[in-house]
Amino acid sequence: MNDKSQQVSSPERLKLVVIGGGFGGLQLVRSLSREPLDITLIDRRNFHLFQPLLYQVATGGLSPANIASPLRSLVRRQKNCRVLLAEAEGFDLAAREVVLHEGRVPFDICIVAAGARHSYFGRDDWEALAPGLKTIEDATEIRGRILRAFEEAEQTTDPVRREALLTFVVVGAGPTGVELAGTLMEIARYTLRRDFRNIDPAGAQVLLVEAGDRALPAFDEELSRRAASQLARLGVVVRLKTRVSELTPGAVLVESTGGPETIVAETVVWAAGVQGASIGQRLAKAAGIDCDKSGRVPVNPDFSIEGARDIYVIGDLAACKLPDGSQLPGIAPAAMQAGQYLAQVVRARLRNEPAPAFRYRDRGMMATIGRAAAVARLGGWRFSGLPAWLIWLVVHLMFLVQFQNRLLVLVQWAWNYFTFNRSARLITNEVARHPPEAA
Amino acid sequence: MNDKSQQVSSPERLKLVVIGGGFGGLQLVRSLSREPLDITLIDRRNFHLFQPLLYQVATGGLSPANIASPLRSLVRRQKNCRVLLAEAEGFDLAAREVVLHEGRVPFDICIVAAGARHSYFGRDDWEALAPGLKTIEDATEIRGRILRAFEEAEQTTDPVRREALLTFVVVGAGPTGVELAGTLMEIARYTLRRDFRNIDPAGAQVLLVEAGDRALPAFDEELSRRAASQLARLGVVVRLKTRVSELTPGAVLVESTGGPETIVAETVVWAAGVQGASIGQRLAKAAGIDCDKSGRVPVNPDFSIEGARDIYVIGDLAACKLPDGSQLPGIAPAAMQAGQYLAQVVRARLRNEPAPAFRYRDRGMMATIGRAAAVARLGGWRFSGLPAWLIWLVVHLMFLVQFQNRLLVLVQWAWNYFTFNRSARLITNEVARHPPEAA
Repeated sequence: MNDKSQQVSSPERLKLVVIGGGFGGLQLVRSLSREPLDITLIDRRNFHLFQPLLYQVATGGLSPANIASPLRSLVRRQKNCRVLLAEAEGFDLAAREVVLHEGRVPFDICIVAAGARHSYFGRDDWEALAPGLKTIEDATEIRGRILRAFEEAEQTTDPVRREALLTFVVVGAGPTGVELAGTLMEIARYTLRRDFRNIDPAGAQVLLVEAGDRALPAFDEELSRRAASQLARLGVVVRLKTRVSELTPGAVLVESTGGPETIVAETVVWAAGVQGASIGQRLAKAAGIDCDKSGRVPVNPDFSIEGARDIYVIGDLAACKLPDGSQLPGIAPAAMQAGQYLAQVVRARLRNEPAPAFRYRDRGMMATIGRAAAVARLGGWRFSGLPAWLIWLVVHLMFLVQFQNRLLVLVQWAWNYFTFNRSARLITNEVARHPPEAA
Repeated sequence: MNDKSQQVSSPERLKLVVIGGGFGGLQLVRSLSREPLDITLIDRRNFHLFQPLLYQVATGGLSPANIASPLRSLVRRQKNCRVLLAEAEGFDLAAREVVLHEGRVPFDICIVAAGARHSYFGRDDWEALAPGLKTIEDATEIRGRILRAFEEAEQTTDPVRREALLTFVVVGAGPTGVELAGTLMEIARYTLRRDFRNIDPAGAQVLLVEAGDRALPAFDEELSRRAASQLARLGVVVRLKTRVSELTPGAVLVESTGGPETIVAETVVWAAGVQGASIGQRLAKAAGIDCDKSGRVPVNPDFSIEGARDIYVIGDLAACKLPDGSQLPGIAPAAMQAGQYLAQVVRARLRNEPAPAFRYRDRGMMATIGRAAAVARLGGWRFSGLPAWLIWLVVHLMFLVQFQNRLLVLVQWAWNYFTFNRSARLITNEVARHPPEAA
C-alpha cells in the first residue's frame, strides 16, 4: 500500500498533501490548480460541506445535498490533484509521511485543515443527550429529534410530558445557537401551525442558554443587543449568565445568578463549544508541542508549526495569533484567506522567492435570527433586521460552491419565505418510534 | 392511551382509519376532504414517498426531500383528518380497533394501504449483501455502496479486486431494475468520467440479471425488445433466463441455460420481488384467510376482504383480480384509482346509497432506461427512446405531490441532463471507511 501515491506522482514534482476539504483546504487546492505540483487532497468524507447552512438542514429548510458538493467533482478538471477518501491517523515526521489507516502518503509540504468538532468540555457523555451540529448526520439527527418531539406531544395525554416535549433548549448563543433557536421558534410558530390537531405548536418554548453575558459574543455589544431583541420578538427566551451543570434524559440543570434550576425539556441541542479535530493532538504530539485548551494547534504567523518542518495548520484547527494580539476567528472567510495565503507560500517556494506575510482582512461577520431578522457587520458598517438578512442571504448564496446548489437553495428559500413551509421535514434513519409512556 | 383518538373524534361521525400514506391511502384521504368523517391516517413515517423516483436518490440525482412530502403538511387544511405517526401492529376485529404499539384506534371503516417491501423469496439473509430499494434509507445506503465501490477501486492496487469493485449486479429486470442499471451505467460513463485518477469509471460493468425471458415482463414483447436494445446501447449487459442461486460477499452465483456461473461483483442491488407489508399477514390471520405467496391479501372486487367486516385493502398489499381475470398491477396509478374508488364507497355509505363497482382504467405503463431513453405504453400507443422519455418526464413531474418538489426536481433534471453531473453524490451515515485489503 505504501506505493499507492506513486500511482500518479512524478518524482520531480513537489508533493503537496492537504488534509481536509473544508473551506481552507479546498480554497488552497483550487488556488494551486495551475502549478506543477502533485496535490493529494485527503478527506474522510466524499464531499465539501457548507457548514454555515447546516442549521437549515437541521430545521428542515434544505436538503443535505444542497449544501454539500462532491470533492471529486470540484477538482475534476484540476489534473494536478487527486482526492483520497481516507482518514489521516498521524504523521511520521522523520519519513515525511502522513499515516492513514490504509497506508502512507509521502509529502514535501503538508497542510492540515481538518477543522473542529463540537466540544462538551470533558463531558462527552452529554453528546447522546444533546447532539451538536457539525456533520450532515448531526443535522438529520437533530431534525429527527425536533420533529419527533412534536409528534410525541401530539400523541401524549400527559400534560406534563407534553410540555417537556414542547420545550427546546439550545445551549450556546454563538451564531449557530442563535440561528437554531430562531429557526426552531419560527417552525413552531409558522411552519407547523396548522399541522397538528391536539397541540398548538406555537405554544412551544425555545430557550437559548448562554454562559456568557450576551448573545453573539463575537459581535460588538450593539449588535448583540439588537440580536437579543430580535430573538425576544420571535419568542425565544434568552437566558444569559446561565451555565449548564448537568444533563439528564429530559432535563437540563443550569446554574445562574439566581442559583441552580432544572429546565424540563426533551430536546436539547448543543452549540456551546468547539474543539480541534483529533488529528491536531496527534500532530502536536509528534512535533513536541501542546495544543491549546480547545485542542487547536498553535501556529506561527505563516501557519507553520514549531517542531515539524513543512507542516502547516489552517482553519478551525489552528490557533493563530494576529499581530494585534487577537485570535484569527474560526469562521469560513478566515479559513479561506489562510488557504489562499498558503497557496502563495507554496508558489513562492516553487519559484524560490520569499513568501509574503499573512494579513487578515476582516470583512465582517453575520448571523441570521429568522425571517427578515439578522445582524451583520461589514467592515465598519452595522446592519440588523431586514437589511442584514438580505446581505446574509446574498453572501451565503454567493459563497455556495456550485451553481446548481445556489439555484436550488434560492428556490427553497423563496418557497420557505412565501409559504412559511419547509419541505425537508423528514424523520429518517429510524423506522418505528415508541414513546416511553407506552412501554 | 385507549382514549387517544377521542381527543378529536365526535361520536356522531363515522370513524375512518387509513393505514399507510402512500399513493392509495393519501388519494383516499384527500378525496374525502369535505365529508363529515373522523379520519385517522396512520403511517410509521412522517412523509409520503414518491417511490417511482427512489432510484434517482439511490443514484445521486435527487435528494430524499425532493421526492418526500410531510404527511401533516399535505393534509393540514383537511380538518376532518388527523395524522398519527405510529405503526399498526394488528387488528381487534371484535372490538373494531386497530392495535398500535402505542394504543388502539377504533374504526367504523378501516382501509389498509400499507404497501410492500422487497422480497428475497425466503432468503432474508441476502438483504445485507444485496439491499433492495423501497425506503429513503435503502436509497441512501445503495448510493453509498455504489460511490464507495468507485472510491475503493481508485485506491486498490490489486487488479482483481479493482475489477470486482467496478462490477455492479442488479437483480431483477422490472422497471426498478432497468432504471437502476441504466442510471448506474450512465453515472460510470458520464458523471464520474473525469473524477478519478487511477481508474476509468467508464470501464465499469453493469449486469442486469433476470430469471424470466425478457426485460420489463409487464410490458408487451415489442417494448421489452426496445428496452433491451436501449440498455445494450448504454452498455448494460442483460442476462435473461438467469436465476440467482446464492449470494456471498463479493460474488453472485447464478444458474442459466449455460449452467452455474459465478459473477465476481462487490456491489449487488436487489430489485427482484416484492412482498406485502407484514400487517397484511396479521390482518389475514385475524380474518381467517390466507395471503397469496407474495404476502398480499386477497380482496373482493370492491377491495373488501372475507371474514372482516368494513375492512378494505388497497395498493401493493392487495391481490385484486380484475373481471378479465388479470391481476390489478402493483403500480402507483392503480393504487390511486383504488383510493379514489374507496372514497366513493365511503361516500355512498354516508348517503346510504349503493356503491358503484370498481373499474380499472389502464392508462399505461412506462419505464426510463437512461438519458433520452425510455419505453412507454399509453393506452394503445407505444413509445420508446426520446418521445417515451419526454412523456415519462412530464408524467412524473405532474404526479409529484408538491409544487416546490416539481420545481426542484425539474431544476435538477435539467442540470443533470445538460452537465452530465449528479450533485447528490453523498456517502452518508458512515464516517470512516476501511477497505478490507488494509485490515
